[in-house]
Amino acid sequence: MRAPVILENCQTAIPDAAIVMDERLLWLGPRADLPGDYAGLVRHDLGGRLVTPALIDCHTHIVHGGNRAGEFAQRLEGVSYEEIARAGGGILSTVRATRAATQAELVAKALPFVDALLAEGVGTIEIKSGYGLEAEAELRMLRAAREIAGLRDVTVKTTYLAAHAVPPEYKGRADAYLDEVCIPTLRVAHAEGLVDAVDAFCEGIAFSSDQVDRLFRAAKALNLPVKLHAEQLSNLHGAALAAGHGALSADHLEWLDEDGVKAMAAAVTVAVLLPGAFYALRETRLPPIDLLRRHGVAMAVATDMNPGTSPLSSLLLAMNMACTLFRLTPAEALDGVTRQAARALGLSDRGELVVGQRADLAVWNCESVAELSYRIGFNPLHQRIIGGVL
Amino acid sequence: MRAPVILENCQTAIPDAAIVMDERLLWLGPRADLPGDYAGLVRHDLGGRLVTPALIDCHTHIVHGGNRAGEFAQRLEGVSYEEIARAGGGILSTVRATRAATQAELVAKALPFVDALLAEGVGTIEIKSGYGLEAEAELRMLRAAREIAGLRDVTVKTTYLAAHAVPPEYKGRADAYLDEVCIPTLRVAHAEGLVDAVDAFCEGIAFSSDQVDRLFRAAKALNLPVKLHAEQLSNLHGAALAAGHGALSADHLEWLDEDGVKAMAAAVTVAVLLPGAFYALRETRLPPIDLLRRHGVAMAVATDMNPGTSPLSSLLLAMNMACTLFRLTPAEALDGVTRQAARALGLSDRGELVVGQRADLAVWNCESVAELSYRIGFNPLHQRIIGGVL
Ligand SMILES: [Zn+2]
Ligand SMILES: [Zn+2]
Repeated sequence: MRAPVILENCQTAIPDAAIVMDERLLWLGPRADLPGDYAGLVRHDLGGRLVTPALIDCHTHIVHGGNRAGEFAQRLEGVSYEEIARAGGGILSTVRATRAATQAELVAKALPFVDALLAEGVGTIEIKSGYGLEAEAELRMLRAAREIAGLRDVTVKTTYLAAHAVPPEYKGRADAYLDEVCIPTLRVAHAEGLVDAVDAFCEGIAFSSDQVDRLFRAAKALNLPVKLHAEQLSNLHGAALAAGHGALSADHLEWLDEDGVKAMAAAVTVAVLLPGAFYALRETRLPPIDLLRRHGVAMAVATDMNPGTSPLSSLLLAMNMACTLFRLTPAEALDGVTRQAARALGLSDRGELVVGQRADLAVWNCESVAELSYRIGFNPLHQRIIGGVL
Repeated sequence: MRAPVILENCQTAIPDAAIVMDERLLWLGPRADLPGDYAGLVRHDLGGRLVTPALIDCHTHIVHGGNRAGEFAQRLEGVSYEEIARAGGGILSTVRATRAATQAELVAKALPFVDALLAEGVGTIEIKSGYGLEAEAELRMLRAAREIAGLRDVTVKTTYLAAHAVPPEYKGRADAYLDEVCIPTLRVAHAEGLVDAVDAFCEGIAFSSDQVDRLFRAAKALNLPVKLHAEQLSNLHGAALAAGHGALSADHLEWLDEDGVKAMAAAVTVAVLLPGAFYALRETRLPPIDLLRRHGVAMAVATDMNPGTSPLSSLLLAMNMACTLFRLTPAEALDGVTRQAARALGLSDRGELVVGQRADLAVWNCESVAELSYRIGFNPLHQRIIGGVL
């Protein structure tokens, strides 16, 4: 057990707060009300700084091979998506690079971006597989994600996303891919303890609702929670399907309709908003934020860090984009990368400044919560505290 | 004189390059062609990394009082611009905070953002006045800018922008403000050596073309170069006016028409693109990039770092926005924050990897120039080299 300490002269929802913590939060309140029992503890003066829960990036593809900077340039030089795809570009180029990479290479490539997130006060990161699309490469991605958790002071939640795309060797045979690769490998990965949740991409260019439904049944048989990339490019009613399976989250949601919103509300499925992909793809259709608010669906915000559609490795910038592009309030954006992001990962032990939660905190050189979302491309972190370690 | 050294095993336009430098670039070329005369010099192996000129942020309002995070939140909570303005918000709240700040406070407030730019490989920053709008406060902003140049390894170019807005005490009397404050204070600031260029905001809500013309004549009498905030919100033909005065640059330019483009081309006036303001204001009208290309107008890219319409302190992110939102190529974006940004500041001694230029360099953990613009919210800088100092 870590000896309890006091953080004092800080700002939370309380203007002049004190926090007592060991690995967990033991007491929070106005500094003036600090109970006498704590009088002998070591005190750390935070100089009036803002304290929030450590941030949580609940949707990333941060482990992958290669990058797509070349394609990014080609598109701006006038090469069409079709020409790029014909030349082997797009997601399949990431699949090739990921299949060719060793676990050590995948880890080394991810770490600078993981470190960039940690430097912003992130304490928990979700990492998806989904660029292997064959047994060994999917397992390697998940092992790389677990390895990262051992190399850095961060909680990693893994998500099995072999149903991300149909690999070239199964072109036109998505069902066979599910039966022969995706579902069997899920069982192997689960047996190895590599899977915290199961995800899929429900879209015309990926997997149908029926296929997702089948995968989710396999997940349920293993007692694994599910989540879904849904309604990003069209409306296949994926969010309602996910909600029907009690999904932790449905993610993207630009094309979500009110029935889908209601289904999510009923199932208490979190809406994970990914404004980085919206920005990078220059989308114009917004997720139905007002409907989500009206029906009380919780909104999380994440980077979607991936080499194709969202090479974004700043969760603070995702917060700014959620406000600027999706019109979230700064309070909603912070809630979206803390409390609601925790719920999107099925974590009940973090994301709130409440007694009993893990002492995962971020201390900011900011005057207000609004400042975290207001600035663009600036990191005001003063200090990250993980498990009570200053 | 600094002893010359060799940077080797690096990538410029040349795949395997070497650079010889003291304070200046003495030689550049394929490593295999390194002349024998340099054989005895100290060598630094850059591990194959990409080398570019140090970046140049040629349009910032980085010195200012206060911040507008509260307004940012209010607008997202549904408060209208009018209500905010009635409550004393908008640019005038920054003017109040700037007038109330000491020079030391202005410097202390700017430094974290200056440091964020330097951490991205920036070697030269332009800093504008324009939130004082009275003699002493304008002078204080410019002195703060000069002080920053003494505190950090960075070149600061100052721009006098008292014609940024009409202060409340001159409401409806812009001409009187010009005659009584703006032009007299320009002369004082110039005499104190505080002014490298003169700028104005030519817009319905600010100053008319006639007023700008008058200010520019006063600048010319002092032999000072001019530049202009033009065609951001409407088309007052400011770019053509600026070009007629041989302006270094016209900045923003969303409403620029072909006549304005032609005038800029004829005067070799640089178009400074500010995608951060476009993003933050959720503008939809793009600057006429193709017209600028067709007429051979040089395009620079800058942050416009300011507390109201572009609280953006990442020049790399401005490059990504220039590509993503304005469809510049990554090569144009890099050119825009190096060679063209230098020209927008009237600097001919930096911005290019050419013998004789200052040895202001940035060394990147990147495989390609495209990667600098491709990533969103990530800083791949390995090392900044200023005046040949590693
Ligand atoms: Zn995703
Ligand atoms: Zn400006």
